[in-house]
Amino acid sequence: MSQKADFLLPKDSASKIPTGGMLPQNADAVVMFEHVQIIDKQMIEVMKPVAPGENVIQVGEDVKRGDIVVRQGQRLRPQDIGACAGVGVTEIAVYKRPLVSIISTGDEIVPAHISPETGKVRDINSYVISAMVSESGGIPIKKGIFRDEYKNLRGAIEAAMSDSDAIVLSGGTSVGTKDMAARIINDIGSPGVLFHGVSLKPGKPMIGGVIKGIPVFGLPGHPAAVLICFELFIRPVLHRLSGLKERWPQYSSRTVRARLSKNVASSQGREDHVRVMLEEREGELWAVPVLGKSGLITTLVRADGAIVIPLLKNGIEADEMVDVRLF
Amino acid sequence: MSQKADFLLPKDSASKIPTGGMLPQNADAVVMFEHVQIIDKQMIEVMKPVAPGENVIQVGEDVKRGDIVVRQGQRLRPQDIGACAGVGVTEIAVYKRPLVSIISTGDEIVPAHISPETGKVRDINSYVISAMVSESGGIPIKKGIFRDEYKNLRGAIEAAMSDSDAIVLSGGTSVGTKDMAARIINDIGSPGVLFHGVSLKPGKPMIGGVIKGIPVFGLPGHPAAVLICFELFIRPVLHRLSGLKERWPQYSSRTVRARLSKNVASSQGREDHVRVMLEEREGELWAVPVLGKSGLITTLVRADGAIVIPLLKNGIEADEMVDVRLF
Repeated sequence: MSQKADFLLPKDSASKIPTGGMLPQNADAVVMFEHVQIIDKQMIEVMKPVAPGENVIQVGEDVKRGDIVVRQGQRLRPQDIGACAGVGVTEIAVYKRPLVSIISTGDEIVPAHISPETGKVRDINSYVISAMVSESGGIPIKKGIFRDEYKNLRGAIEAAMSDSDAIVLSGGTSVGTKDMAARIINDIGSPGVLFHGVSLKPGKPMIGGVIKGIPVFGLPGHPAAVLICFELFIRPVLHRLSGLKERWPQYSSRTVRARLSKNVASSQGREDHVRVMLEEREGELWAVPVLGKSGLITTLVRADGAIVIPLLKNGIEADEMVDVRLF
Repeated sequence: MSQKADFLLPKDSASKIPTGGMLPQNADAVVMFEHVQIIDKQMIEVMKPVAPGENVIQVGEDVKRGDIVVRQGQRLRPQDIGACAGVGVTEIAVYKRPLVSIISTGDEIVPAHISPETGKVRDINSYVISAMVSESGGIPIKKGIFRDEYKNLRGAIEAAMSDSDAIVLSGGTSVGTKDMAARIINDIGSPGVLFHGVSLKPGKPMIGGVIKGIPVFGLPGHPAAVLICFELFIRPVLHRLSGLKERWPQYSSRTVRARLSKNVASSQGREDHVRVMLEEREGELWAVPVLGKSGLITTLVRADGAIVIPLLKNGIEADEMVDVRLF
């Protein structure tokens, strides 16, 4: 990632910023054509009073020399690109998009286009993770499906380290595999695993680590856990890798207020992310919990978003107002 | 645009949806490895009671034959792509992105990389519009800058009709030009201009029309007006052209509640969109109006969003709570 300086107005451009109207040498205001009657070729009648400076943009009123036009670390919005064009900047240095390798693990995983035999499941997560990486400004690299075997999996992670800014392991839901992924991360290089297991549902067996400066994540196998864990742990890291410093990060995810349709229980000591559908009933917005195991992908498709039950709460009662974070 | 049918689960796939665990022929539940102690090669001790069906996903519990997995007209989210992968669908028909031609008009407009002489201004709007088209799912085609001359401008619009799903004219702020654009739209084909002028600030001189099935818009020259008018009039049309039927359109633009920092006046009879910055003061969010002429691009860069003063209100008083639509 190349460092990018705050973008400054080029030194020679401030004096060239044009005024709003066509202002001849001695004029100090502009009248609107609509407020003028043409008397003859020499004379006009101005129908409305006009003050000095009216309808004129002074040099430096919009941007002046030394002003910062676009700040480092922000996503370029249409108006930011317009502001650059306005000062004659049609090329700008940007951070490169982080390359994110996705390694699917699990002896039970088969490619999605193949019909799975009994006991096998199609690879769903590499598709979900790829799409989330793209959404977060990264470039996904699907490395394929690897067997739950130490040497094989270690080889895959080591190979990915040569062309990735971050690595995401998906699957490995069995106890043995989870431990193996953590062991490999520790074995390859320091600092290795930073955390293994979070007080979160779904998503408990999440692994987060760093190997030689490259963030490595181990996601649980259930699609619902993938979605929640990516949102909470991986998206902020990808934003950081792509140089993003949002001005209002706390307000930037789309949330809506809704009334909870039924009691939702939760165990104390873990943060519970409950998927909900939104329904409008007599003009009011309701959040209806979507029931179903976290291994089911369709519960995610039916859900419009999730509500969070905090670590120390036992649940939320029906009719309470909740914030729904939209997917 | 090709019609796309609701995506249905392939007829032969329901019976092949795998169960969650490796379920041997006569077993009806799965116990977690963590709850088992291995006694010897033949025997395990199960440490926790288990009920029939536990940890098993039944055939059809997630998706069954005939279920609609992904509905026509929605943007494919990561979980939707995952759901398709889960039923073995790795390719899917989508709407093509609408091609949107952008025609800049105005004798005073010079390309952004050129240093403008007195009375000339750099082309800002084609950059702003291109970025907004991309954001809305379209593909922008910048056709260039055209002089305010009937034949010339008519030729540009007619040429654009051969390769565009929509056409956006930008600029032509002078009275003569505005009328000329409307006249050309009417002259080329029916139904022509549908509206010319809206009760909106900024954005009053907006033109909307259709020529032989192709939507044509004339945007005012001021960047602030471009931003607001695009959002209100053009984005919904591009969504329609790209087949999008959002499930919760009214909740899909990102808005935040904030307290207005000062009185804002407005004329009755027009909808006033006032640009504001967000500021956090002692934990509360404030909306601070950004002052400055609508011709200034930097007011848009400084603004985080806009508040709307409805048609029949004279303004909003300081300390009132307002909804800020984030840019």
